[in-house]
Amino acid sequence: MKPFDELRRRLAEVSDLARASAILGWDQQTMMPPLGAPGRAEELATLGRVIHERFTSPEIGRLLDELAGFEQDHPYDSFEASLVRVTRRDWEKACKVPADLRAEMSRAASLAHPVWVRARRENDFASFLPVLRANLELKRRYISCFDGDYDEPYDAALDDYERGMKTAEVRAIFEYLKEHQSPIVHAIADAEPLPEPPSRRFPLELQKQFELEIVRKFGFDDEAWRLDPTVHPFASGAGSQDIRITTRYFEGNLDGLFATMHECGHGLYEHQIGAELDRSPLGRGTSLGVHESQSRMWENLVGRSLPFWRFFFPRLQELFPDAVRGYDAERWYREVNAVEPSLIRVEADEATYNLHIILRFEIEQDLLAERFPLEQLPEEWNRRIWDYLRIEVPDDTHGVLQDVHWSGGSLGYFPTYALGNLISAQLWERMTVDLPDIDESFEQGEFEGLREWLRENLHRHGRKFTPSETLERAAGVPKIDPEPYVRYLRRKLGSIYGLRLDAPAPS
Amino acid sequence: MKPFDELRRRLAEVSDLARASAILGWDQQTMMPPLGAPGRAEELATLGRVIHERFTSPEIGRLLDELAGFEQDHPYDSFEASLVRVTRRDWEKACKVPADLRAEMSRAASLAHPVWVRARRENDFASFLPVLRANLELKRRYISCFDGDYDEPYDAALDDYERGMKTAEVRAIFEYLKEHQSPIVHAIADAEPLPEPPSRRFPLELQKQFELEIVRKFGFDDEAWRLDPTVHPFASGAGSQDIRITTRYFEGNLDGLFATMHECGHGLYEHQIGAELDRSPLGRGTSLGVHESQSRMWENLVGRSLPFWRFFFPRLQELFPDAVRGYDAERWYREVNAVEPSLIRVEADEATYNLHIILRFEIEQDLLAERFPLEQLPEEWNRRIWDYLRIEVPDDTHGVLQDVHWSGGSLGYFPTYALGNLISAQLWERMTVDLPDIDESFEQGEFEGLREWLRENLHRHGRKFTPSETLERAAGVPKIDPEPYVRYLRRKLGSIYGLRLDAPAPS
Repeated sequence: MKPFDELRRRLAEVSDLARASAILGWDQQTMMPPLGAPGRAEELATLGRVIHERFTSPEIGRLLDELAGFEQDHPYDSFEASLVRVTRRDWEKACKVPADLRAEMSRAASLAHPVWVRARRENDFASFLPVLRANLELKRRYISCFDGDYDEPYDAALDDYERGMKTAEVRAIFEYLKEHQSPIVHAIADAEPLPEPPSRRFPLELQKQFELEIVRKFGFDDEAWRLDPTVHPFASGAGSQDIRITTRYFEGNLDGLFATMHECGHGLYEHQIGAELDRSPLGRGTSLGVHESQSRMWENLVGRSLPFWRFFFPRLQELFPDAVRGYDAERWYREVNAVEPSLIRVEADEATYNLHIILRFEIEQDLLAERFPLEQLPEEWNRRIWDYLRIEVPDDTHGVLQDVHWSGGSLGYFPTYALGNLISAQLWERMTVDLPDIDESFEQGEFEGLREWLRENLHRHGRKFTPSETLERAAGVPKIDPEPYVRYLRRKLGSIYGLRLDAPAPS
Repeated sequence: MKPFDELRRRLAEVSDLARASAILGWDQQTMMPPLGAPGRAEELATLGRVIHERFTSPEIGRLLDELAGFEQDHPYDSFEASLVRVTRRDWEKACKVPADLRAEMSRAASLAHPVWVRARRENDFASFLPVLRANLELKRRYISCFDGDYDEPYDAALDDYERGMKTAEVRAIFEYLKEHQSPIVHAIADAEPLPEPPSRRFPLELQKQFELEIVRKFGFDDEAWRLDPTVHPFASGAGSQDIRITTRYFEGNLDGLFATMHECGHGLYEHQIGAELDRSPLGRGTSLGVHESQSRMWENLVGRSLPFWRFFFPRLQELFPDAVRGYDAERWYREVNAVEPSLIRVEADEATYNLHIILRFEIEQDLLAERFPLEQLPEEWNRRIWDYLRIEVPDDTHGVLQDVHWSGGSLGYFPTYALGNLISAQLWERMTVDLPDIDESFEQGEFEGLREWLRENLHRHGRKFTPSETLERAAGVPKIDPEPYVRYLRRKLGSIYGLRLDAPAPS
């Protein structure tokens, strides 16, 4: 077998095992009977070990060496050169982490999870402290494996989720957001609030029907997708033809619909990756930030837009006449875009969401650098929530214990949520230049234009290019730029709240 | 690490991967969107290769050598000695088959499956012929890997499903059945037939509710089990705490309920295996025949018994009043035990089922020995159906193409179904000695007595012992004996049909 074919074969096996692992993870959160949990943890741990072993094998290194000339002989954007280039970078990074440390990290994460669940439920930060400490210590050891590769330690944490992104760059972006997004939140806080929605009921079966009608128009296809209920919505699957999205339902509101559109955005990205990248390390989204740009785009720029509701409001009214009695499309549109500083990140609106992320980003750097004793973490959290959102945290359940990430040692993950918001607006500005009639098509219930634009300019490339190269191809610039998102918020929320949310005059 | 612990660790990993594979197979038949099929085939093939590679590694062989003395030092029925003994046999057998041949067999089976589906649908045996030929040729090559290990080639095929069973032994058992079971079928054919059931409707939602009520009494526990609909019912899962059974539903009859009780029997066996055998090659049922004894026992000896229906008939009547109007428990009991020679194995009643198996067993040996040209297989099939059941086969869809097994090269599998029937009656005779009041407990809707008897005498041992050793512990004899099953048929059907179905007088 030629070295390239041999490399491809080995990578296809690793991809098969990773997909098996993804399906087991999906099953665990949607189907598995509760007592299956300890067995499932073992199965996933073993699969993780086998995947790591096979991917970091010296054979792969030897093939990559042999293929250096082959890579040079192929164009940069060819499948061949991209596979060798991306695999080399992944392989070199993976080989720097001893298998024992990796196993210890995944064991510590498994052990911490139930401790976090209990601590959150019982508002008991003290019981979470030891496992958090252990996870942080392991994360520091992990980061030290890459000594000298990065400008600062947090870079190594970020790079796992957003390849090539630097802490300094995120810091500059977030400083811009603090300067320009916070005033929007404050101006709205001082403005006339929107009317409170009435208490009401959206029967669950009708919610399911409605959201399927919507995501089928986005591109959900029963031949290649599933939608199931779960506790924490997520998107997963096994390649572009087996997409699994999950959501949840509440009787009293339509939050589940927005979760479904969000996960559908993730699903569409994976679904539209080029078939030639299948069963290779190139066959998935390029980074978490770019992925999140897709989920946030379909959830917010599409699903919370006025043209979207001009089409779907009559159907909403038909399915839930009592719940929206006295509403028209405009009033409903304003309601689903209401801004209200709140304690919980996953429930935050478009204007306050990034602020939740910024405080986590700052705290994570402090944690890595041990800038305060870990016992003080709740106070640090609560103080910053006050600084950014002017609200009081009543207890740690609604504060520092709310997110799962730190219990699994996932430092560096949070920033990708905010970066996704920013990228979604960059892509949107570029897309509307190519498709000036997009609003009219949404008003007709047509979404293929947007979907195909995303396929052509973004999705089909999968992981061939770095996030920055990918962004350059899709949005025309290689850098994440916060201005389009702030412009979007000013325009949309200014109109909803009847405010002039212009950029501050240069002083 | 000590050699035994090291062996155990390696086997636990293999078990984890096998369970991952089982969940992927379950998912494929219950959850996966249709376009996921090609990807799933790759994932399962890769997992199969990795499992085989890791199990047949020379390291395992070295550990088994090192542990020869250790095995001697432990009692035969200890976990330690059993793990070494059973693993050695599995390992030696697995190592005899070249990885390439194994891969070719699984590829040929994958390729043949859609060909068989189409051929069966379109009654087109000719199109199935080439893939059947390829599968048979591979099976012959597979069997030749064990040259000299067996008395006749079919022994090697059987041994994969029923460890240690010999063709000669099956032949003798089946000769007995031909002599003693066939006359029962013929006597019933000559007797007054039972009244035809009316055409009727059992609403599907109520069927689901009813069957869950029943299997929960058998031991189905929502914390550790799932029940899902599928096309061909099966039982699967990932260890004793994650049991997955599947069934199907027809509006016009309750066949689905019997399928559910059948699969529940398989599930109970796996569920009650001793916890100490978990994540080892000992942690599953000992053979397909013994497994089938459990499914047939719960389906037939329990679920088609009069005491069972004395308890459940009032509930049946409550749920489906129109469907069983004018019935009492006895009439319903007779109906669900009606004997009627038919074309399709999976729909066969207790009296004719084994005859379907015997003809397959005889044909399989002819196929391996190439006793007739493969083109003649349909005629051979049809001729024997006439010989055994006195019915004409109208087309190959209802004849030689009905079963999936040969398309996957699974020769030697069929006999285990009939052996399971026989074992179920052997166990039953022994059980009723220990639990003389079992009928009364069924009439009260109590099944723990039987379930706990099975746990203690059979289930908990898993695969520690050979099928024959297992049978000796549970039924008191080390051999499969067809007499109890024939006695059971004579007693039950004689009473239902008002016939004296005694053993033929010695001539």
